Amino acid sequence: MLAAVIHDARDVRAEERPHPKILTPGDAVVRVVAACVCGSDLWPYRGVTPVKRPRPIGHELVGVVEELGSEVTSARVGDFVVLPFTMSCGVCQSCRAGYPAACDLVTGFGSTDRGGHPVDGAQGERVRIPLAQHSLFPVGRSEAELEAAGLVPHLLALADVMSTGYHAASSARVSTGDTVVVVGDGAVGLCGVIAARLLGAERVIAMSRHEDRAALARELGATDVVAERGQEGVAAVRDLLGGDLADAALECVGTKQSMDTALDVVRGGGRVGFVGVPHGGPELSVRRLFERNITIGGGMASARRYMETLLPSVLAGEILPGKVFDLELPLSDVAQAYAAMDERRATKVLLRP
Amino acid sequence: MLAAVIHDARDVRAEERPHPKILTPGDAVVRVVAACVCGSDLWPYRGVTPVKRPRPIGHELVGVVEELGSEVTSARVGDFVVLPFTMSCGVCQSCRAGYPAACDLVTGFGSTDRGGHPVDGAQGERVRIPLAQHSLFPVGRSEAELEAAGLVPHLLALADVMSTGYHAASSARVSTGDTVVVVGDGAVGLCGVIAARLLGAERVIAMSRHEDRAALARELGATDVVAERGQEGVAAVRDLLGGDLADAALECVGTKQSMDTALDVVRGGGRVGFVGVPHGGPELSVRRLFERNITIGGGMASARRYMETLLPSVLAGEILPGKVFDLELPLSDVAQAYAAMDERRATKVLLRP
Repeated sequence: MLAAVIHDARDVRAEERPHPKILTPGDAVVRVVAACVCGSDLWPYRGVTPVKRPRPIGHELVGVVEELGSEVTSARVGDFVVLPFTMSCGVCQSCRAGYPAACDLVTGFGSTDRGGHPVDGAQGERVRIPLAQHSLFPVGRSEAELEAAGLVPHLLALADVMSTGYHAASSARVSTGDTVVVVGDGAVGLCGVIAARLLGAERVIAMSRHEDRAALARELGATDVVAERGQEGVAAVRDLLGGDLADAALECVGTKQSMDTALDVVRGGGRVGFVGVPHGGPELSVRRLFERNITIGGGMASARRYMETLLPSVLAGEILPGKVFDLELPLSDVAQAYAAMDERRATKVLLRP
Repeated sequence: MLAAVIHDARDVRAEERPHPKILTPGDAVVRVVAACVCGSDLWPYRGVTPVKRPRPIGHELVGVVEELGSEVTSARVGDFVVLPFTMSCGVCQSCRAGYPAACDLVTGFGSTDRGGHPVDGAQGERVRIPLAQHSLFPVGRSEAELEAAGLVPHLLALADVMSTGYHAASSARVSTGDTVVVVGDGAVGLCGVIAARLLGAERVIAMSRHEDRAALARELGATDVVAERGQEGVAAVRDLLGGDLADAALECVGTKQSMDTALDVVRGGGRVGFVGVPHGGPELSVRRLFERNITIGGGMASARRYMETLLPSVLAGEILPGKVFDLELPLSDVAQAYAAMDERRATKVLLRP
């Protein structure tokens, strides 16, 4: 089968890999209907995190169950499923508490499972899914029906970016009437805009300096856009709010500057939800949080939980997170998909095997 | 009048100071009925924070209004009042949002107000209170009545430690059925135990290795006590919980070790409320919060808000935070009060002018 493999910085190839098989009674094999490239896939692509050896890549997919291990009863062969971007057991304390992202057995795509078996990347024709009992999320409708309704991209967004944007807003405890600043205009930031509105925010200020993304942010619910960055951005937010600051901020980038901005745009007692994958820092000053009473939470999104919350809104067409995909390519053109995102010619690329 | 002045490390004296006067129309003068020594007063006393010049000290008091500036209408002369440990305007965005500790004009005792006038310390016979309109909190009962009912120590605890313990529990969003670990067995930690129970925690594990404090923690509502520290303490919590971890932790010390313990005793998706004054750190690793989905919040407590929440419970005798005072001395013996707390002969000393 065809699957994407990253060999080195700026070297992602679609190449032949072995057809996945059931290796344990808890596995499933899923045929991929759609996958995509994540902003975090660009870290190894850009050489920010080193690629030690060639490995399959990608962690977002929707697909159809082809085969099930003997212990998996949560789905049936033929079910259309969404996969969260990490697999989880559903049994440990973190899973039971609603945080499968912090599962004791958390297992990523393109890595190795707890039994030592390699795990496929999501950018491929098929994947073996370990911990399938809890990780498979059947949508309850057929592939044909979902394709005809144009719902596949919106469901695919639940695998990561929409769940992650929702985690940012939920961690920042966004609620009715809030003023929220979203730092970051990538796919996650854009989904953060959707999530903030869904949770009742009255005013959502998107920090974006790309005209196309700013326009999409407005389409998805942003009431204002601030193009400035850093302290100039904070000043622009203050201007917009008549001297006040925001109740909450969503940090959707993962750099020191974006975290600083998120901390600076909220009022005393404000809340920051952060979901940008932190890159070699930043460290947070406890004193800074202390003096301004800022609460910070977030991290890796428990997509497996949020997709349950969000599915009805997607099926009802209330939210359209698939709008973040602005380019669709065949899996065989995966190298072009990475290049387009790297060069900011695309916000997020959907891949079709 | 007599007031405590810190001259240098281990040198606190009760000495004659000028009788405070109204300096601005927003001031009040309060006669102190009771004051006390805070764990944070021990930082300069122990030389951890340098004492650059002699200054009045203390930031916790209850008293009776003696004089009011022309603009102060929130209290009347003769009212028995509690003062929060920082003064606030009540008007800025942080105050309006319920976070007067992060007030734009926040003013501490023993410092200088925004007009450049010196502010008295609370360990004295009288204090000038700037920003009195919002800062004075009248209890609605007379001094004689409150003294007769033995309520003065419990009300004094609202000035800081009980409000701070409540801030820790509230920031950690403690709610019904939670398992909560309290890190720190000082007065704030003990009040954290009270607060966790008040907010519905089912199980409260106090980390304490002092027998007298552990006994008091149990009296105030702790269901378990763990004497071990660091990783041994975390293991002991796991043992108590049958391999699980806590839903929330209250960090009531302010050291790197106590913060590490608080972060390590909560499950994935757990919440840490921190109120220990951070001393030259610690810095928080964003990645650590990220991977385990830990939310952290807290900081300087908005005592002015929490005393409103907590007053009914104090007046009804439902909570007894004044139990943290285990020594009472006249103000003239303030040097002994500091020594007793420094040498851990007392948890918290109440001073009577």
